[in-house]
Amino acid sequence: MQVNLVEVGPRDGFQAIPAIIATEEKEKIIRGLYDAGLRRVEITSVVSNRALPQLSDAGKIISFGNQLSGCLTQVLVANAKYATTALKQGAKKLVFVVSASQTHNQKNVRLSVEESLREFREIAAMHPPTTPLRVNIATALDCPFEGTMSVSKVMHLVEQILAISANVELAICDTTGRNSPRRVTTLFNRLISDFDQENWVFHAHDTYGMGIANCLAAWHEGVKTFDSSIGGLGGCPYAPGSSGNVATEDLVWLFEDMSIDTGVDMDMLLTVAETASSLPTALTGGKVRQALKNIRSA
Amino acid sequence: MQVNLVEVGPRDGFQAIPAIIATEEKEKIIRGLYDAGLRRVEITSVVSNRALPQLSDAGKIISFGNQLSGCLTQVLVANAKYATTALKQGAKKLVFVVSASQTHNQKNVRLSVEESLREFREIAAMHPPTTPLRVNIATALDCPFEGTMSVSKVMHLVEQILAISANVELAICDTTGRNSPRRVTTLFNRLISDFDQENWVFHAHDTYGMGIANCLAAWHEGVKTFDSSIGGLGGCPYAPGSSGNVATEDLVWLFEDMSIDTGVDMDMLLTVAETASSLPTALTGGKVRQALKNIRSA
Repeated sequence: MQVNLVEVGPRDGFQAIPAIIATEEKEKIIRGLYDAGLRRVEITSVVSNRALPQLSDAGKIISFGNQLSGCLTQVLVANAKYATTALKQGAKKLVFVVSASQTHNQKNVRLSVEESLREFREIAAMHPPTTPLRVNIATALDCPFEGTMSVSKVMHLVEQILAISANVELAICDTTGRNSPRRVTTLFNRLISDFDQENWVFHAHDTYGMGIANCLAAWHEGVKTFDSSIGGLGGCPYAPGSSGNVATEDLVWLFEDMSIDTGVDMDMLLTVAETASSLPTALTGGKVRQALKNIRSA
Repeated sequence: MQVNLVEVGPRDGFQAIPAIIATEEKEKIIRGLYDAGLRRVEITSVVSNRALPQLSDAGKIISFGNQLSGCLTQVLVANAKYATTALKQGAKKLVFVVSASQTHNQKNVRLSVEESLREFREIAAMHPPTTPLRVNIATALDCPFEGTMSVSKVMHLVEQILAISANVELAICDTTGRNSPRRVTTLFNRLISDFDQENWVFHAHDTYGMGIANCLAAWHEGVKTFDSSIGGLGGCPYAPGSSGNVATEDLVWLFEDMSIDTGVDMDMLLTVAETASSLPTALTGGKVRQALKNIRSA
């Protein structure tokens, strides 16, 4: 058995770090992730440089990613304008983001959900057919402003997305990390049984310590692709000071111990995790990195 | 649906803290746990004061526990001599500990497994019949010295225990925390189907971030009683610097979000968690405490 891991540290992780990371340092980490065996990396996002100066080197990072043979690098965008820029800069796969919650979508990308779907229509038309365009459904389980998202609301959004383009990969994002496996199970169960769609992804946050349990719940429902972040890098803008994405090394540990192949070399991964988690002002997460370090120096 | 939580912070947590905690401070925390709704607390262990000075106030703590109406306090012991002392000091329920691994048992309690079983026979004979004597099977999944424990080895030990006394509660302890849900599922599945025994407990460590996922796996197999430690207090002597038991507040979060009643008031629990995790030289774990603190101050 095999699982596909998508490393989102260079985007979701780096964007949460206040101190600007030198482009060379980012490239070193991306190279390390690639060398450890990760072949899908969300390397950056094309966004307003003013809003997110940390990612203002997106063009250089995309070029760097394109040099890594066999690496499917993906770039996050929230509108057609930035999608155009990202494709011009060489992005091979785009990730479009829209929230299930109106309030979150408005605060996150300054668009209503309907406006976002119009952007999506344009992006779907320009996306290269060689790989499916990915859609991140943010706040798919719970919204920091509106609370629990109903399953039917998410189902309706998925329906609208698939009506615009069926050639997509759909990522369910637990933005707040405030959800337990029960809700993850219920949502994926419904999605997978109701939609004739194979490319499901789960994007877990570990803010409340449920990340690994939630990933396992999604796996049991048939999800085969998971996002995670090296060193647990990332944050939660709605609970400042809290850690973010589930840590790649913890997810690798889980799957490998269950005899599910991740294609990742743990020792090489830990070296990158050490570098990434030492970045100034970085908030880190996960437990495996520290446990293995402690046991090896004991 | 309901789950039974056994708070082990005052024993497993405190014993891992190097700086001696004043008896009054311990009592304050135990009272806080009780007030938050926890009705089963492993309050101390009767052991050699030289080996574990932190717990040398066991007699006073047992007396204190006996004043909490309706609280089933339990006391850990590793041999008949200390069991006699604990009962004399007023202990109402004992927890006997034996490891599945010979090497670990020898290092942990300086007895062979066979010698431990002889101690167990004596303790079973002296234990009050009002509540079942509990047996902790340490290293039931994995040993820091011998590695993975085979299911049949654990089955054989359980068989030997039940042949001596059938009126027991059996706790499967993931001493290293190095196990994934797959192994937890396999072991409990076999134990529950092969033994006519209802009182199973799971004692999870979160050293590798698998604690919550492992508890959920045990729950799905039919386990209804779980150990946890306030603030994630506790450590791992085999990976010094690593955190220990799964945090009570994370476990309460998991179960309550799944509509499984824990009987615990989260706000009152967080107050105790804050006190416990502020103990000098304490290693803490868990995520819910920090996430809720951050979100409330955001």
